[in-house]
Amino acid sequence: MKRTTKISSAVIKRLPRYRRYLYELKRKGVEKISSKEFSEIIGYTASQIRQDLNNFGGFGQQGYGYSVEGLYNEISGILGLDKDYKMVLVGAGNLGTAIANYIASYKGGFEMCAAFDVKENLIGKKMNGYEILDNEDLVDYVEENKIDIGIICVNKENAQAVADRLTFAGVKGIWNFAPLDLEVPERVAVENVHLSDSLHSLAYHIKDIEKANSKKTK
Amino acid sequence: MKRTTKISSAVIKRLPRYRRYLYELKRKGVEKISSKEFSEIIGYTASQIRQDLNNFGGFGQQGYGYSVEGLYNEISGILGLDKDYKMVLVGAGNLGTAIANYIASYKGGFEMCAAFDVKENLIGKKMNGYEILDNEDLVDYVEENKIDIGIICVNKENAQAVADRLTFAGVKGIWNFAPLDLEVPERVAVENVHLSDSLHSLAYHIKDIEKANSKKTK
Repeated sequence: MKRTTKISSAVIKRLPRYRRYLYELKRKGVEKISSKEFSEIIGYTASQIRQDLNNFGGFGQQGYGYSVEGLYNEISGILGLDKDYKMVLVGAGNLGTAIANYIASYKGGFEMCAAFDVKENLIGKKMNGYEILDNEDLVDYVEENKIDIGIICVNKENAQAVADRLTFAGVKGIWNFAPLDLEVPERVAVENVHLSDSLHSLAYHIKDIEKANSKKTK
Repeated sequence: MKRTTKISSAVIKRLPRYRRYLYELKRKGVEKISSKEFSEIIGYTASQIRQDLNNFGGFGQQGYGYSVEGLYNEISGILGLDKDYKMVLVGAGNLGTAIANYIASYKGGFEMCAAFDVKENLIGKKMNGYEILDNEDLVDYVEENKIDIGIICVNKENAQAVADRLTFAGVKGIWNFAPLDLEVPERVAVENVHLSDSLHSLAYHIKDIEKANSKKTK
């Protein structure tokens, strides 16, 4: 299938959401869906949906709708979810444990291989069935096991140093939970989960709704 | 100060990041910064920065730059971070505990008041110094203590029911970590942290970089 060379980042950001809804539809046994029906459950307009999906050559047929399974598989492929990824996690505190649990329960191609920490009271303990290893051995482990993704769950002060070592050891991507923007070479993909940014957006929206309501009652 | 009535959501999304960098500059004792200097550290273009900040009436002076503290305070105000927010958390597992730790360490106006769970082995135990309460008491607690924000750390199957009860009890906002899009009335703000969407974006970017590299070497 021919694809346009450059898809806008806004479309890319919406793809995981399309996939999530398609997964639910698939699970419920739905086989076909029109852009109008899809629009009602996902909350984008039907024209937005058609436009987004046309970026990939279009999978729908006029008057027939989209094949739920076909579209799900196609989007999975576009997202790179038809491959397997080996992961390590650095920082085995509460957040690290939560993320490791999340990956363990995730049904898909993401496999957690090991966790690392600097704290002596954690090293050697078990987390989700595998041992927590000494941070000193991170680079060797990543190289030897051809790890694809490093997950950073350490604090802000140590995150860049961990990123440097993961990058040196050859990971392809970093999933970063530390509250800073990492500097890495172009060959390494970074995806951030910045909790504070998300919390501040929430505060903004609360304020915005209150402002709108106070105007209405005036 | 006059403000335009409607600020685009793209600008709003960038504000927490501006604030985060301004906080670091403030901490380092920097008092003034030009849009060019700011551009170099934050990674947006100088013209993007000027355009974004002009939305709020503009705080810079030609040839003088922005006041770091002034801009930080102004953005904090716009984001609603000059107020205090009382929070409860529902779902006291690993992720819930991680988020509670995060809020406890957060220096700002967010106060965690209580955690709730349905599991009998968790109810009555301590988490970050306060007792984990019975989920049955959620609505009464939120009403009596005038809680502003509910944090949802339960699984996908129970998340909507928790959101319904938080909404009924009168929260203004929900910080949702469950992997689904909640249905709530317009008066309630929702901010999602969808881990799977973030992970899938990472997979896409890894694939995208690999594709670009394989083209280069051909």
